[in-house]
Amino acid sequence: MFESANLPHVMTRDEFEAAETRLRELLLDAQFEVAEQRRAAIMVLVNGSDGAGKGEVVNRLYDWLDDHLVETLSYRKPTDEERARPGSWRYWRDMPSKGRIALVIGSWHHRLLRNRALGRLDKNAYDNALEDMIRSEEMLRREGVHLLKIWLHMDDREAQKRLEKLREANGALRRPAVIEWDEIDGGKARARLTDAALEMIEKTSTGNAPWAVVPASDPHYRDAAVGDLLLQTLTGAAEGTPAAPSTQAVATPESALPRPSLVSALDLAKTADRETYSQELRDLQQRLTEATTAKSFRNRGLVLVFEGNDAAGKGGAIRRVREALDPRRFRVHGVAAPSDEELARPYLWRFWRNLPRRGDVAIFDRSWYGRVLVERVEGFAPPEDWMRAYPEINDFERQLGECGYLVVKFWLAISQDEQLRRFQDREAKPFKRYKLTPDDWRNREKWALYEQAMTEMVDRTSSRLAPWTLVEANDKKFARLKVLRTIVERLEA
Amino acid sequence: MFESANLPHVMTRDEFEAAETRLRELLLDAQFEVAEQRRAAIMVLVNGSDGAGKGEVVNRLYDWLDDHLVETLSYRKPTDEERARPGSWRYWRDMPSKGRIALVIGSWHHRLLRNRALGRLDKNAYDNALEDMIRSEEMLRREGVHLLKIWLHMDDREAQKRLEKLREANGALRRPAVIEWDEIDGGKARARLTDAALEMIEKTSTGNAPWAVVPASDPHYRDAAVGDLLLQTLTGAAEGTPAAPSTQAVATPESALPRPSLVSALDLAKTADRETYSQELRDLQQRLTEATTAKSFRNRGLVLVFEGNDAAGKGGAIRRVREALDPRRFRVHGVAAPSDEELARPYLWRFWRNLPRRGDVAIFDRSWYGRVLVERVEGFAPPEDWMRAYPEINDFERQLGECGYLVVKFWLAISQDEQLRRFQDREAKPFKRYKLTPDDWRNREKWALYEQAMTEMVDRTSSRLAPWTLVEANDKKFARLKVLRTIVERLEA
Repeated sequence: MFESANLPHVMTRDEFEAAETRLRELLLDAQFEVAEQRRAAIMVLVNGSDGAGKGEVVNRLYDWLDDHLVETLSYRKPTDEERARPGSWRYWRDMPSKGRIALVIGSWHHRLLRNRALGRLDKNAYDNALEDMIRSEEMLRREGVHLLKIWLHMDDREAQKRLEKLREANGALRRPAVIEWDEIDGGKARARLTDAALEMIEKTSTGNAPWAVVPASDPHYRDAAVGDLLLQTLTGAAEGTPAAPSTQAVATPESALPRPSLVSALDLAKTADRETYSQELRDLQQRLTEATTAKSFRNRGLVLVFEGNDAAGKGGAIRRVREALDPRRFRVHGVAAPSDEELARPYLWRFWRNLPRRGDVAIFDRSWYGRVLVERVEGFAPPEDWMRAYPEINDFERQLGECGYLVVKFWLAISQDEQLRRFQDREAKPFKRYKLTPDDWRNREKWALYEQAMTEMVDRTSSRLAPWTLVEANDKKFARLKVLRTIVERLEA
Repeated sequence: MFESANLPHVMTRDEFEAAETRLRELLLDAQFEVAEQRRAAIMVLVNGSDGAGKGEVVNRLYDWLDDHLVETLSYRKPTDEERARPGSWRYWRDMPSKGRIALVIGSWHHRLLRNRALGRLDKNAYDNALEDMIRSEEMLRREGVHLLKIWLHMDDREAQKRLEKLREANGALRRPAVIEWDEIDGGKARARLTDAALEMIEKTSTGNAPWAVVPASDPHYRDAAVGDLLLQTLTGAAEGTPAAPSTQAVATPESALPRPSLVSALDLAKTADRETYSQELRDLQQRLTEATTAKSFRNRGLVLVFEGNDAAGKGGAIRRVREALDPRRFRVHGVAAPSDEELARPYLWRFWRNLPRRGDVAIFDRSWYGRVLVERVEGFAPPEDWMRAYPEINDFERQLGECGYLVVKFWLAISQDEQLRRFQDREAKPFKRYKLTPDDWRNREKWALYEQAMTEMVDRTSSRLAPWTLVEANDKKFARLKVLRTIVERLEA
């Protein structure tokens, strides 16, 4: 869930000031529009790691907005009044009226996470609470309350350091009230907290109320990103889009925010050692054969997903995997435009029908992720449809996982230059020409849009059961080895 | 959930034949419309008590529809093929394509109920499965698959008798494959089954895919009601209504179905014994005082809901309750048209803000049920809004229940004649005239619509935690005693 947030996100002071000038004007316009319409209330739920700067973010938003139409709601230990009523009463009592914006620190998410981390809720009770949360948030949305759920993300160690500094600077008087997770339950509380947060972001990121994960190491970037997300939320609320996404994990094209992409963070120049390649390949294939013919595999099943840039070498990588498998036990599914039969059914149907039996292997050359890649970028699916696809896909893969299937997902990444070289190569060689279509050239023009869609896809669907593996694929041999090694290691784990 | 279904629902042969003639024509028209549009697929999920006639219903629908565009899907013990894949694969494999109708016996609901009854799933696993189900069904709906979820309801004993007969008639060859629930686990399996079915109908009756409970004792009524529900579903699908209700627990005004109402099944002539009334009243009030001042009550809380016909005597009944309570510990909330402040927030807000502290009592003279009564009948809320209110209200009351509150809900029913008498009385007496408004006369004209809305309300929100109590109120004294007795008995239980 934090794949792209873990990349460095920085803004210089100049960049920030330019962004701020722009944001202030647009935010005020949008705020007054929402206030005049009185059709939607906005709740900005500022959550995240301790020390990531929740208070600072709220202060910044106060600076930018008209403060007559804003209120801060901050929840700490329940009061006597609150304890005497159901847990959600405190939030209901403070519900902002239509036209207004509430900035919330310590929302219902916070309390739930805390209770799970402290061991007051077991796994099942926590899961049930998450489901209740999904239904409540859906109800609020239908009643005109737009939620902007922000998760300020900061590396644990960095957050600790930042807290230390704050304490020194403020002295005992303004010591932030923070729980020392590492000291509770021999460190288990910290582990439960991290796991519970991941699960919450994964499961409660619905089409109508997705989490926006905001990297919080650099305060400039952090504040500008939150401002941008709020602007999108206000604009969506003013336009009355019925079920459109209010947020995105990454910035919009309109914003001035720097957009670190997952691909640009990869070292695409990685290469395989030419001398040992053949031997390594054979060894990995041997291990794959062993793992998939072992008796224990009969109760499992392997679902491999290959996505990536056009000409990134998916076919070649699949071939190296395929060679190691019993031909009776696998099938490769090339996913192109859906057939008439498939179009007449829910989009996941074409994949359900091709699920392998337990003990078998299904290789998907492109997959259900088309919904949030090509269908999103080309506009084949409206935003409300591809936004809800993230949780739907997570549900789907969770079903596979619970049934014993191992889902391994690859994104094969090449540089734009390398792609051009491969396209030209395909044009030149008659036997390769069939591999290149006008679509490939067209997709290439939308490189940045695909990269953005891919980044959000990885952020939203790299679940605990089925994480994505990004593969540096400028060197085909390197990519093949990495693909094989990943599968083998997941199988052997 | 089975309040109105437990009333006798009968149709004569003549009535049935008239209904059939009408249904066949309309069903075929609607079916071809859906088939031509190819925009929606219909799944009719026929579930219910063993012996209630699931097979017969499917056969009847086959007779009425064009059978080229219909398919039956029947699920029994999973095959080897099916067991080798995730549980829902079998349903995905058979997914009907858009334009077609699938008649399903043994849907996912059936399997889940069975596993819960056999003890293969514990309570938590069952709850989680229900939540997964809600999300899957919501996804199907958004993908164009309209679900008509039918629950054929039959009294257990009647179903048993019917099965016996079927066995005798068919001999060993066509013996229905039925589980003898009473013989498993010393009868506990039967109890679990009943409880699990109630919970399922309550929790998975969402705005987009509500259960339709069909009384199945009389095959004529049963088949005509199912035909009518299917007609509504097809019409809704053809009109492409985005989130409108596809079904209703009771028949529509257009249909020829007899409509037993919950009120007409009451014996409104019941009266209190004049000689013992005062003593009984005093005794009950005394018990109420004791129960609400007991130490154990401090961790509880009492929420009383009074709904009913205009002039049914809610005020008088409330007064008799109020007299027994400590004035510091209760508040009466008269619910009229919402204020500006209330209109600017989710509709439940005005009730959340008035929740009592634990240990206190809140009396609502009219309540959140306005959403599914006056707002529905007067058209203040569109169908998609009042349909989703049933599960939302159940969620709300469940939160109260889990927090220790006792929710006791009354519908005070009087006859039309009695209401007229009371209205005229109010007109005649100057000090009562303020109690009568032009609205009261207008509502009176919509008597049948209110009765229908009330029946569906009771069916859909009489939950296990917060059941409705219907009060025969032509005799005010009788009503007051019944109200007090119900509260006292619930408190003492």
